[in-house]
Amino acid sequence: MRGAVIHAPRDVQFEERPDPELKEPTDAIIRTVATCVCGSDLWFYRGVNPVTDPTPIGHEYVGVVEEVGDDVTTVRPGQFVIGSFFASDNTCPHCRAGYQSSCVHRELMNGCQADLVRVPLADGTLVATPERPADELIPSLLTLSDVMGTGWYAAVAAEVRPGATVAVVGDGAVGLCGVIAAKALGAERVIAMSRHEPRQRLALEFGATDIVTERGADGVRRIRELTGGVGADCVLECVGTNESMQQALRSTRPGGNVGFVGVPHGVDIPGEDLFYSHVGLRGGPAPVRAYLPDLIDRVWTGRMEPGRVFDLTLPLDQVAEAYRAMDERRAIKALLRP
Amino acid sequence: MRGAVIHAPRDVQFEERPDPELKEPTDAIIRTVATCVCGSDLWFYRGVNPVTDPTPIGHEYVGVVEEVGDDVTTVRPGQFVIGSFFASDNTCPHCRAGYQSSCVHRELMNGCQADLVRVPLADGTLVATPERPADELIPSLLTLSDVMGTGWYAAVAAEVRPGATVAVVGDGAVGLCGVIAAKALGAERVIAMSRHEPRQRLALEFGATDIVTERGADGVRRIRELTGGVGADCVLECVGTNESMQQALRSTRPGGNVGFVGVPHGVDIPGEDLFYSHVGLRGGPAPVRAYLPDLIDRVWTGRMEPGRVFDLTLPLDQVAEAYRAMDERRAIKALLRP
Repeated sequence: MRGAVIHAPRDVQFEERPDPELKEPTDAIIRTVATCVCGSDLWFYRGVNPVTDPTPIGHEYVGVVEEVGDDVTTVRPGQFVIGSFFASDNTCPHCRAGYQSSCVHRELMNGCQADLVRVPLADGTLVATPERPADELIPSLLTLSDVMGTGWYAAVAAEVRPGATVAVVGDGAVGLCGVIAAKALGAERVIAMSRHEPRQRLALEFGATDIVTERGADGVRRIRELTGGVGADCVLECVGTNESMQQALRSTRPGGNVGFVGVPHGVDIPGEDLFYSHVGLRGGPAPVRAYLPDLIDRVWTGRMEPGRVFDLTLPLDQVAEAYRAMDERRAIKALLRP
Repeated sequence: MRGAVIHAPRDVQFEERPDPELKEPTDAIIRTVATCVCGSDLWFYRGVNPVTDPTPIGHEYVGVVEEVGDDVTTVRPGQFVIGSFFASDNTCPHCRAGYQSSCVHRELMNGCQADLVRVPLADGTLVATPERPADELIPSLLTLSDVMGTGWYAAVAAEVRPGATVAVVGDGAVGLCGVIAAKALGAERVIAMSRHEPRQRLALEFGATDIVTERGADGVRRIRELTGGVGADCVLECVGTNESMQQALRSTRPGGNVGFVGVPHGVDIPGEDLFYSHVGLRGGPAPVRAYLPDLIDRVWTGRMEPGRVFDLTLPLDQVAEAYRAMDERRAIKALLRP
């Protein structure tokens, strides 16, 4: 089979790799129907995270089960499935508490920008759709593997409740999915912070009520203006830089909450600032698995269409171009079809 | 009148000061019935926080209303009252959200280790008891002005729920009040981290089910052992050092919460650690005012007796000895009676 391998910053190649095989009786092999490039893949592509050896890359996938190990009971060959970017057993205490991405047996998926993928702990990781989905549902279902689940977790961690005023820091695919999540969870007002016209437009279509183009201290000031000096009830931090985190914390009202899902790079939170802010803070890799049944249902019944974050679709063998387009911000998010 | 003034580290004097006067129509003057020394007063006493000029000190008080301004409507002369260590209007958006210690008009009380105290924003700050309390209730009512309210907030911020496993970092008066709060909020298991036998005993009397004497990495390991490797659902950080904060964060299960009420000194939270921990974090100066009605009722009806944290009672004119005793850890908390 063939798959994407990152050799060095800005060097992603699509190459022949050995077919994955069942290693454990709890594994499944999936033939991918769609995969995509994640903002966090760009940390490697841009050299922010080190690349020491050639490494299969990609962690978002939907596909059809090809083969399952002897212990797998909840999915079977031929089913269309979606899985989290973290494999999880879904039975340990952390999973049972709804934090499958802290599963004691978790494994970060990689090498998913490929024809075939081995999924460990298949019963705890994969969820099958009711039947084979119509082709137009594929992009939205694919987002549930990471970005839409991550946007959802950001909103849950920020404790979005009906009537809330929510600000979203970051207009990448996760931030845009955060807008969808905030709206779906009943937010009355959703302020999207974005300087890019196509992303602003998408945010508004997803339910944003206000756009703030300013950043940093100016952005914070604008949020305060828009909220009568109070600050937002909930802020979704979907970037991961120290600047974006500080912006998020300072945009939140006392007693409000920041949900942070941008993988932190150089983020540092002074205890005294957090103390006097009265802001609650929770983040982490999203426990996507917890949300899959509900989110699949929302997509299946047409209640959300997060697949619209894909503004570029390419054949999988053009994966290098997908990285370039996202790196150069020519695309919000690129979908790849084998 | 006379009151305590801190002149320099380890130099607290009880001296003649001008009687406080009504400055605003929203003020009240209180004749103190009891006051006390707070762990946070020791930050000044020990020179950790700077003392530049002679400063009246103390922020915890119960007393009898002597005089009120023309705009005060909820308390009247002769009533026994308890107030928060932060004056608040109790009407601004932050107050209405339950964060009176972030009130837009908040004023930190000081100079309360004195015969008379001016309380700004009396309607929003003070709560009267149903009638003059019996003398044995005075210590418990006094704790509601800060430490018991702060322990309560720590438990609320850590989201203690019925059945929870709670760890309390810090065995000072606030930590001990945190044990009371955790128990009152339904915790099934309360692990007190303490190396001091008298404090351990009090923690057990207040409802702690386990004592952990280890600190740092050893303390974290012990909490994990006691919780089947999972970690505590809720951790109350009641110290304020970087070590105690890291200990609190690492003792918490993924998806659990730390409530931090120790005023941070040199606390620094790396974003990446917090991210991968999945731990929720909220702290700050406790919105004591929000809890006063409920906590007064709990004390009045004998459901809690936080006044037992006072293990030293002195006449107010011996305030300097009260500081010495607490500084040298000869006393957990010293009560002063004018």
